[in-house]
Amino acid sequence: MSVERPESRLSFSTLGSCARGIDSVITRLMAAKLAQPEMLSLAAGFTDNGLLPQELVGEAVAHLAGTEKKAHFQYGMNRGRPGLRNCVIDLLKTYPGEASLSLSPENILITNGSQQGLYILVQMLCDPGDIVLVESPSYFVFLELLKGLGVKAVSIPMDAEGRIDADGLQALIDTYKADGIFDRVKLVYLMGAYANPSTRCIDESEKAALAGVLHALERPIPVIEDMAYRELYFEEPFPARSLLAMSEWDDYPVIYAGTFTKPFATGMKVGFIVSRDRECLDTVASIKGHQDFGTAHFPQAILEYVLSSGAYSAHLSHIRQAYMKKRDLLESALEEHGFRDAGWSWQQPRGGLLLWARGPEGTDTRIGSAFHRICLEKEILYVPGDLCFAEGSPHGHVRLSFGALESALIPEAARRFCEAALAAEKG
Amino acid sequence: MSVERPESRLSFSTLGSCARGIDSVITRLMAAKLAQPEMLSLAAGFTDNGLLPQELVGEAVAHLAGTEKKAHFQYGMNRGRPGLRNCVIDLLKTYPGEASLSLSPENILITNGSQQGLYILVQMLCDPGDIVLVESPSYFVFLELLKGLGVKAVSIPMDAEGRIDADGLQALIDTYKADGIFDRVKLVYLMGAYANPSTRCIDESEKAALAGVLHALERPIPVIEDMAYRELYFEEPFPARSLLAMSEWDDYPVIYAGTFTKPFATGMKVGFIVSRDRECLDTVASIKGHQDFGTAHFPQAILEYVLSSGAYSAHLSHIRQAYMKKRDLLESALEEHGFRDAGWSWQQPRGGLLLWARGPEGTDTRIGSAFHRICLEKEILYVPGDLCFAEGSPHGHVRLSFGALESALIPEAARRFCEAALAAEKG
Repeated sequence: MSVERPESRLSFSTLGSCARGIDSVITRLMAAKLAQPEMLSLAAGFTDNGLLPQELVGEAVAHLAGTEKKAHFQYGMNRGRPGLRNCVIDLLKTYPGEASLSLSPENILITNGSQQGLYILVQMLCDPGDIVLVESPSYFVFLELLKGLGVKAVSIPMDAEGRIDADGLQALIDTYKADGIFDRVKLVYLMGAYANPSTRCIDESEKAALAGVLHALERPIPVIEDMAYRELYFEEPFPARSLLAMSEWDDYPVIYAGTFTKPFATGMKVGFIVSRDRECLDTVASIKGHQDFGTAHFPQAILEYVLSSGAYSAHLSHIRQAYMKKRDLLESALEEHGFRDAGWSWQQPRGGLLLWARGPEGTDTRIGSAFHRICLEKEILYVPGDLCFAEGSPHGHVRLSFGALESALIPEAARRFCEAALAAEKG
Repeated sequence: MSVERPESRLSFSTLGSCARGIDSVITRLMAAKLAQPEMLSLAAGFTDNGLLPQELVGEAVAHLAGTEKKAHFQYGMNRGRPGLRNCVIDLLKTYPGEASLSLSPENILITNGSQQGLYILVQMLCDPGDIVLVESPSYFVFLELLKGLGVKAVSIPMDAEGRIDADGLQALIDTYKADGIFDRVKLVYLMGAYANPSTRCIDESEKAALAGVLHALERPIPVIEDMAYRELYFEEPFPARSLLAMSEWDDYPVIYAGTFTKPFATGMKVGFIVSRDRECLDTVASIKGHQDFGTAHFPQAILEYVLSSGAYSAHLSHIRQAYMKKRDLLESALEEHGFRDAGWSWQQPRGGLLLWARGPEGTDTRIGSAFHRICLEKEILYVPGDLCFAEGSPHGHVRLSFGALESALIPEAARRFCEAALAAEKG
């Protein structure tokens, strides 16, 4: 893969050169959110400060002070606290159809947010120029991570309902084979529940159809199921089992990525990956050993206490209600200010922190577009949808987040956003 | 560089294949320490649980609960909290001759321990097969990190006093040039203060001589000065300025790596790198953005409070005294049990957590040696010195740590260790 190399007096590696060429959207969005508090941001994928577990963490810290002889302030194991890893197993088993999931702490590895897990998996499997298959749309921070490692993202064909088109995927693979580049396809990345940005979930029939295509290949292509938002359902957990729990995926290299960053303490950045593929997890552990030889032990100990005390599930019930109310606030304000009437459409989110909307024919929401400029004038931020497509198009979507903005400001943000959208349309 | 590829059904990347082949010493040592508490470990580079700042952290958490509207539980900036970065600058300025150090928060990047900083720097600068110049001995975890990235470590020639031999380095570079491989030399890695494992410090004349050699090259080779142990001096800070503060190194790509992991809370894993080379730090930040888009915010907020309240310097004074006493305990027990009489020699550590000793001619401390076997029989662990040399030899050193072991157990550990050493010698 050719890499643009800006003039430099230093001699960078291939990876360094890749990274230098990238203007990070996530970094810019986060900096904008932090630097311009007067802007109303529907962009940042932050959680709601009001829902962050100050009291629970305080209790956990007080509890830890009386136990463990300060072991929680010491180094821990590279793969993470065994107790926390057991808590992860217990958490997974609470999902419909997963009570009999067969996992041991050896199948779990604690990471610095799910992001580090994703990064190491791509490092481990992909060389520059390799191909990763992603949904359309997909998580833009993951797309950026791939770019940073010189890896190419390619969209899996999706049908009109936004589901994976198994026949289309087969055709894509056949084309790769015909072109002699199938051996560059190294990984499939999916978001199983309340995907970022679409909030769609993948049901079992779709997962089974995908298994049919992948299992017929002459070599396995590992599949990551990113479940970062799984805990953030509003009413009922999505009924589909994870790939880990479906017999169709037995003996296939599947990696589940989860996190406590969204559903618990964003500022602790503790995530995890789960796999029964020992070769895969051992290698991840080896790379993790080089990167930091273990996620910080203190936040892990806090989480372990909160999860094992039962406080975690009560916390989740509370925030699910709260985020559902915020979704309702955003949706009703968008309706009220004529967003749907103006030709925009969206599926109601059943979980997560996002609303993914598609503009009428011809809408262009890209950075630098009239739409974008008017939003900035009205001091409102959103994520342009094109960033969420591996191929950089279509251009007519927006990702709105109701996670970070205080409830009291959501109606005003929605009003400004609709005004901007309507003004842009009039041109 | 050729990579041993064990049989696999998965298709690993070059990096994944490298990582699979590595039997991690750090991971094994840490696991051994955590799994076999009855062993007396002089191996693990852990800090002393008794000196970990439980009360200070408790105070910080209580303070934070009353401020910031829970922002410390939210995401932060990719480069780290601006306030904490300012604290890092203030900390550096406390060192002899560094009060006028010209740095802004833009020159600092907060990392997951100093390890992540080292890892990203190597990723950024080195492709597989490239060469990194290191001291002899050097930090074995760094040597392992290099292996994991397929990068070759080569020892800088050192003189009989263990100082960098500038003429020898020049000769090495000339050889590389003659062989046409000088362009593979990408990085110099030094530990400026109380190095792991030797506890030596690099004085200014040595640093100036190194500058003379490197500045004369046709392209700059970045230099990392790892100062992980700098705060842990026993009586006085080592008087040499860091490379950052020496005019001989102006306009040269120098990176300072520091951490709060050893001197404060090991289980929080907050470190930092400092550089005035903007191109370098921007690229590190880009890679960091892909790996985790920012170190966990909560531990950073705790540290920022502790540093700005002044409690940090009092904490440091306390632990310096305590570690010096532990050094004394270890040294006097080694003397008492005949270690020096048996032909072992060492420099008294003036800081850090380690004692680096060299056995009499013919000593072999490698894993699997009689020496090692006898130590295991006596339930005593040490780090074999060969692991600390890029070339895997000489074989006659041991690295002993007085960091983790309780003071009360140090004399017994030293007794067992001396017994083992003497028994091995009799063979």
